[in-house]
This record gives sequence, structure tokens and C-alpha cells, in this order.
Amino acid sequence: MSIKNYMQRIAVDMDGVLADTFSQYLDWDERDTGTRKQREALLGKPELEAFAGIREYLYTTGFFRSIPVVKDSPEILLQLTKQYEVYVVSAGTEFPQSLPEKQDWLLEYFPFISWQNIVFCGSKQIIKADIMIDDHLKNLDYFEGRTILFSQPHNYFIQHQKHNRVSSWQEIAELLL
Amino acid sequence: MSIKNYMQRIAVDMDGVLADTFSQYLDWDERDTGTRKQREALLGKPELEAFAGIREYLYTTGFFRSIPVVKDSPEILLQLTKQYEVYVVSAGTEFPQSLPEKQDWLLEYFPFISWQNIVFCGSKQIIKADIMIDDHLKNLDYFEGRTILFSQPHNYFIQHQKHNRVSSWQEIAELLL
Repeated sequence: MSIKNYMQRIAVDMDGVLADTFSQYLDWDERDTGTRKQREALLGKPELEAFAGIREYLYTTGFFRSIPVVKDSPEILLQLTKQYEVYVVSAGTEFPQSLPEKQDWLLEYFPFISWQNIVFCGSKQIIKADIMIDDHLKNLDYFEGRTILFSQPHNYFIQHQKHNRVSSWQEIAELLL
Repeated sequence: MSIKNYMQRIAVDMDGVLADTFSQYLDWDERDTGTRKQREALLGKPELEAFAGIREYLYTTGFFRSIPVVKDSPEILLQLTKQYEVYVVSAGTEFPQSLPEKQDWLLEYFPFISWQNIVFCGSKQIIKADIMIDDHLKNLDYFEGRTILFSQPHNYFIQHQKHNRVSSWQEIAELLL
């Protein structure tokens, strides 16, 4: 990376990028149905269709607080904060009760992210940054900067030309560090 | 206002602009000290200096939920939503427990503001909008668009050239409607 006076700003999504929400859905669905769904069978399905109980889960106390962290994301995000201005931007206002849980969760796994660099919003069209990492096209498509699509089962078959698809935080490290 | 395809976006602060947080401080301080402070005696004082108990108040359950609404703000903000894309942007992540309270409060007084147009953040440097209405220079000074400084006792003596100072929502209506 070239030396710049200006530090580029990255807006990093939580669910599906830092938080392994899909695994949490699998676990809770298995708990409720007695059967563990196969990831391969859910490729391309919107999350709301993939799991019958999802609407209830999203409003359940403890759901967001107990999501596992995505592999390698704490270590690589920490490295990114040394070269970029990093904001965690989560579309959390649809589920207001989740907001303190999400912030507690961030404090556990990403204690180096200050409250000043946390954003909970609805539409991400209001976000001003240079790079956005997200698993949803509804967020990336409106973004004017560089876009990185984080692979999740729900976006598996999506064809796109604008966004850089990655499947792991190691790939993000290769792109940005 | 001229007819445009592009709707200008306004980022409106909560505390000190929609929420009459200063009156809440006066009330809680009077409850605790037995004496009601005079607004005039507090002009120019940072809020943290003006009220001894303020740090405690900000972490107290119910503080943000019970703040009175600023006069005329619901009616005029509703009118603004017909001509502008309105986002409510509150620097709430310093007090995570306040976030559901703040969102409940908005639902009570501003039910026409969707969760999609609510932002809770720390630094407002990440906000992309055309107009910002705020009572703190720390937010306005970094903003590249049009800035409106909402008068509050703490900013009373601040001299500035860049920002348009207003003392009421009626004045905002005159500027923007």
C-alpha cells in the first residue's frame, strides 16, 4: 500500500461478515427441529426462507450476543485498523433490542473497535467510506466506493461484476493488507 | 425549493435538537439537589460541567426514554420528510444501554421515521448527507455539506462563520421549507 496522508475508511458489516450468523441459524434450527440442515441444501436461499424460525430468533434475547465469530476476523480486522480507519456498520435498527447485545458482542471479540467507530443503522446509503465489506447486495449496490462481497450461502449464486467476492478473511487480508 | 430529481438528505441529531435533554438535566438535577438551576447561569458551560450528576444520568435506565421533545420538532420534521430524505443520527454508541430507549422514544414522538432512517453512531464523520442539524461543533465541523447549529446553552457563546445558527424549529422551517 502506498503511503498516504489520507487513511482510507472501511465500513465492515457484522452479521455474515464478522458474526457467523448462518452457523447460529443452523444451531438454533437444529435445536428446534431435531435435524441439522445441510449447508449445501441452502445455497442461494434467502435466510428468511432457509430457516422457519428465523423471525422469532431475530427477536429473541441472547440470539445476537451468542453468535460465533467468523474465523480469522478478529486478527485480520486488528491488522486493518493499523492501515485503515475501520468502522463496524451493522443494519441493526430493525431489531432495537439487539443493539446492546451487538455492542457487547463487539466488545468481546473486537475490543480494539471503539464505540466511536461503531454504527447501527437501517439503510446503509448514509454511510460515507472508501471500502465496504458486506454480504448483502442491498448494501453494496448503492455504495460508491470499492465493494467486497463476503460469501454466504444466501448470496452463493449471485452474479455481479462490480463487487469483489471473497470467501474468507484471509482473502480480505490478501486484498487489503 | 426548486424541483430536483435528487432529494437532499438531512441528518438530524437527537439530543439537543429533537430531544430537550437540557430540560431533562435541569429536572433531574433539581430532583437530586433540591434547587433548580437557572438556564442563564449555565450559558456557555459544557453539559458535563453544568450538572454534577450528568455522568450518572447518562447511564441510568429511563433517562433517555423520558426526555421531553423539543417544541415544534415533530410537526416540522414531518413536513421536512415530504421534501427531503430525513435521517435521525444520534451519537448513542457511547451509552449502549440507551439505544433501545432512544429508538422507543423516536417511535413515540416521530413514528413517521422508519427504522431504516435511524442511525446510532459514535463519530459522525461517517455520515453522508447534504445537510446536518446538530448542537455540537464536534459533529458539524467535520461535515462537508450545509450545517445548521441548533442553539443550546452549552454552545451559546460559540462564534462560528461556517454554521447557520437557529434557536427553534420554526427557524429551521423558515430555512428549509
